[in-house]
Amino acid sequence: MMALLDDTHDPTLESWIESANDSNTDFPIQNLPFGRFRRAADMDWRIGVAIGDQILDLRRARLISGYDMNQLMSLGREAQRALRLAISQGLRRGSAQQPEWEEREALVASASVEMALPCQIGDYTDFYTSIHHATAVGKLFRPDNPLLPNYKWVPIGYHGRSSSIIPSGTDFRRPLGQTRAADATVPMVGPSRRLDYELELAALVGKRNPLGEAVPIGEAEEHLFGLALFNDWSARDIQPWEYQPLGPFLSKNFASTLSPWVVTLDALAPFRVPYQRPAGDPDPLPYLDSKANREAGAFDIMLEVWLQTAAMRAAGSPGERLSRCNYRDAYWTLAQLVAHHTVNGCNLQPGDLLGSGTLSGPQPDEAGSLLELTAGGKRLIELANGESRSFLEDGDKVSLRAFCERPGARRIGFGECAGTVLPASTTVERR
Amino acid sequence: MMALLDDTHDPTLESWIESANDSNTDFPIQNLPFGRFRRAADMDWRIGVAIGDQILDLRRARLISGYDMNQLMSLGREAQRALRLAISQGLRRGSAQQPEWEEREALVASASVEMALPCQIGDYTDFYTSIHHATAVGKLFRPDNPLLPNYKWVPIGYHGRSSSIIPSGTDFRRPLGQTRAADATVPMVGPSRRLDYELELAALVGKRNPLGEAVPIGEAEEHLFGLALFNDWSARDIQPWEYQPLGPFLSKNFASTLSPWVVTLDALAPFRVPYQRPAGDPDPLPYLDSKANREAGAFDIMLEVWLQTAAMRAAGSPGERLSRCNYRDAYWTLAQLVAHHTVNGCNLQPGDLLGSGTLSGPQPDEAGSLLELTAGGKRLIELANGESRSFLEDGDKVSLRAFCERPGARRIGFGECAGTVLPASTTVERR
Repeated sequence: MMALLDDTHDPTLESWIESANDSNTDFPIQNLPFGRFRRAADMDWRIGVAIGDQILDLRRARLISGYDMNQLMSLGREAQRALRLAISQGLRRGSAQQPEWEEREALVASASVEMALPCQIGDYTDFYTSIHHATAVGKLFRPDNPLLPNYKWVPIGYHGRSSSIIPSGTDFRRPLGQTRAADATVPMVGPSRRLDYELELAALVGKRNPLGEAVPIGEAEEHLFGLALFNDWSARDIQPWEYQPLGPFLSKNFASTLSPWVVTLDALAPFRVPYQRPAGDPDPLPYLDSKANREAGAFDIMLEVWLQTAAMRAAGSPGERLSRCNYRDAYWTLAQLVAHHTVNGCNLQPGDLLGSGTLSGPQPDEAGSLLELTAGGKRLIELANGESRSFLEDGDKVSLRAFCERPGARRIGFGECAGTVLPASTTVERR
Repeated sequence: MMALLDDTHDPTLESWIESANDSNTDFPIQNLPFGRFRRAADMDWRIGVAIGDQILDLRRARLISGYDMNQLMSLGREAQRALRLAISQGLRRGSAQQPEWEEREALVASASVEMALPCQIGDYTDFYTSIHHATAVGKLFRPDNPLLPNYKWVPIGYHGRSSSIIPSGTDFRRPLGQTRAADATVPMVGPSRRLDYELELAALVGKRNPLGEAVPIGEAEEHLFGLALFNDWSARDIQPWEYQPLGPFLSKNFASTLSPWVVTLDALAPFRVPYQRPAGDPDPLPYLDSKANREAGAFDIMLEVWLQTAAMRAAGSPGERLSRCNYRDAYWTLAQLVAHHTVNGCNLQPGDLLGSGTLSGPQPDEAGSLLELTAGGKRLIELANGESRSFLEDGDKVSLRAFCERPGARRIGFGECAGTVLPASTTVERR
């Protein structure tokens, strides 16, 4: 089969959008992530690609004809690769498209638009792919037996709530709920006192599989469009009282924040790394194993959590980094998640979201949640401005960031995934 | 406030559709459930109301202008009550609408159309409202401690899979998945050998609540459109190996079957009954309690499970009833489910589905699953034709049915919710 000559990762490529050539930008011409935006005058959300501090409006650039991101995602990887190449060629310095795109006003400043969720989210599944997170959380509940016996065999996952997934920058209220103190027999209802973030990546499904037809691991990535940052806010005091026997529910479904830009798997190609399990661990079952997955199933993506308290904001401080870790340390790969999710015939659809689960690295300071960083709230985090935190307080803004860099490749980034905690509603008390 | 004079429940009402006056029909003029249908020549699904063996096409009858059931559901109960009254008046014997509706061909034979899911399903939440089911299943896993301490305080629920909800009559494949034998250290992959049904009711959400705003119990039912039958097929051998610590996943999300007709809460008004807890149980917390809920929060709905094996089908037998129970025995009411689901600010949207969870009555023969009827597969069910079952076999068709009847009211029914088990895919073995 003839393949397109794909030079979109060439680190020497430069764009006629000068801000894209800045060494600090998340969005050089080698990245080209997809999102939905609108200017104040627009009715519909439009499909765009981030390039430096600008957005290329794909319809005004006459690269696509419509507004439906889910439909674009459903076309599959081959069509997406062709579109990526056309965008890359048009944005290169000296391209033939530059005069036409300028004339059509196909470029708009990112700072001047509103961003939506990147697509309409269908079903949302959250996995549990960090063995370091699973072990650390397990230790808090079961010190002698932190990791359950299924963990190394089953890519553990469960269904989450789609309606409360909100775009980055949307603030949300601290949730109320039932909690029960350790020494109490009767629960109480009130605002959560142990509100936490969860550092995650979200994979968005592109091509669908029909109900009843499993996706073999060798075809799994053909069904994925790309990755975005995801914060699955969690109420740690609501969760233990509600989650037996069917899993977390109100402790999670009040809000989850998704970043606006989807970095495609094609953009991530230079940052693929081998997938290896620790010595002594069992091999994955055959439906979760392939040569390609072992050789390059994982991704080298650095992830960071930043906290900006209300006091920091008042003082003009951008905030403080709480932790960083790398996605390559996940125990299960994206391809394994798709193969497992569909082994029973479950149908994935364009716009479905597969969360990685909280990503924590092997070191204690690489944890992706306050629950872990504070050992269940027992060890305060001291901040540089003299404040401290066990869990989140009203006014706290949490920002997730991610980027890929390695010698011989152009650094690419994911932008920001941010949300601020508002005070709890008083509805229940008022009623 | 002026209220419509609602005489739609009058048991003496008769329709000019003669089949609606048959004492055996599920769909007399007092019912008027909503669904989506299409004739072979139609492009779009159309909104209809079942009346006897006919369907009233609401657009051809000039009662509504569009095709979008979710939009109709979102209008809220007041608008729905007005529409119900107009439909009832038009279908009554001697109505002024009869000539016009006949001329417009606004009525179509149910037997001649294809039925869709009644709406586009958004998020699907499954609850666990039968204390008899929770206790029976708990006994299988924890003989000494069948009911967990949160059960009488928290209406336990979790998120399920929407993409694999299929309309009644759609057959589905037996799922494959990981299972681990009690004496094994390594799991295996293959077709489920413990495939089961779950007898449920599904409440469909109408009016939305904004993210961050709880729905007080006194307003909860204003957010519900109606009830349908729901079968949450389950693989009992996949579930125990996968479900710790985050809940059921692949054991459930391969298929769930929804009946085509939504019986509105307005149609169910004559069948409301008091909600009472057993003596000695704690009162519900204030956000889950109201005078209206105590006085009439429950519904008197008889539910039945029927099994038709391939051998029965070949012999022309309609099948055999496996069990029956009553929804009034549920531990939590619909209003409590809505109030609990939103207490943390979670936003419900038109088309969201709230499953009751498996409905089992207080007697062992009133159980809503084979898991309970066979004591975990240990006690075979003997069928009248000489066959027996522990769990479902390929070719088995399970049909759920429901109806309401009491002196002084016209009997109404829910139609049928049916699906047949197809053999497992061989994809995993072939690969």
